[in-house]
Amino acid sequence: MSESTISNTEHETGTVFAPRFDESGLITAVVTDATSGLPLMVAHMNEKAIKLSVETGEAHFWSRSRKEIWHKGGTSGNVLQIVDIHIDCDQDCLWVSVEAKGHGAACHTGRKSCFYRKLIAENGKLTLQMTPDQPLFDPKDVYK
Amino acid sequence: MSESTISNTEHETGTVFAPRFDESGLITAVVTDATSGLPLMVAHMNEKAIKLSVETGEAHFWSRSRKEIWHKGGTSGNVLQIVDIHIDCDQDCLWVSVEAKGHGAACHTGRKSCFYRKLIAENGKLTLQMTPDQPLFDPKDVYK
Repeated sequence: MSESTISNTEHETGTVFAPRFDESGLITAVVTDATSGLPLMVAHMNEKAIKLSVETGEAHFWSRSRKEIWHKGGTSGNVLQIVDIHIDCDQDCLWVSVEAKGHGAACHTGRKSCFYRKLIAENGKLTLQMTPDQPLFDPKDVYK
Repeated sequence: MSESTISNTEHETGTVFAPRFDESGLITAVVTDATSGLPLMVAHMNEKAIKLSVETGEAHFWSRSRKEIWHKGGTSGNVLQIVDIHIDCDQDCLWVSVEAKGHGAACHTGRKSCFYRKLIAENGKLTLQMTPDQPLFDPKDVYK
């Protein structure tokens, strides 16, 4: 998984998987629901998290706050079963399509998606409006 | 748009728009097609790019390579007309739903989506497989 030995053209249109990790060794991962297509969450993977995700078929990330591998759903039971993974043109972003298991919620607030607020302009000021996406579990019961 | 004066709860479930920019003043923006839900591209916005996007209704980003505001489609005519913008739970990521104008292609390679390659495991090695997503324009004709 090294990008140093391949050309720019090969990097963009070839078949060599050579992710461009940032200076922290991370790549952004956009997670969407395989059925609805809805964006569920955005997180980061390092090389090990990609390896674990592929090997187990369940999404693993690198937790930047805890500085450790994060098996999503390891605590809540809400694992994300991977359907497929795509990479973008310059190989600095992954798109992970999943089936959300357990409560079917990807967000730690209990909601299906982390994107439960919409940006609106009100009297010339940007503010947020809640969408109808309601929590599917109570975080207090799950994260003890 | 300051996060310093609001509580964590307000930040996560309130209506105050207080994006958490990274140390470079940027926030990740995931762009999806409003009709199909397909992820098109991932880029970054700074405060000015958000303002311009909201004011014009067309997606603006911060180009990290050129270090300038990037009006997507300004050169190619493939502007991204914004349908709506959502923000995630911890306000460090935007989801921008768009209609791709012009050729209907968001990728600089001419394809609709930047995610035209799928990760597959072949003989124990990770490699990429092209999806059927074909270029909708020839970059050579557009970027002169």
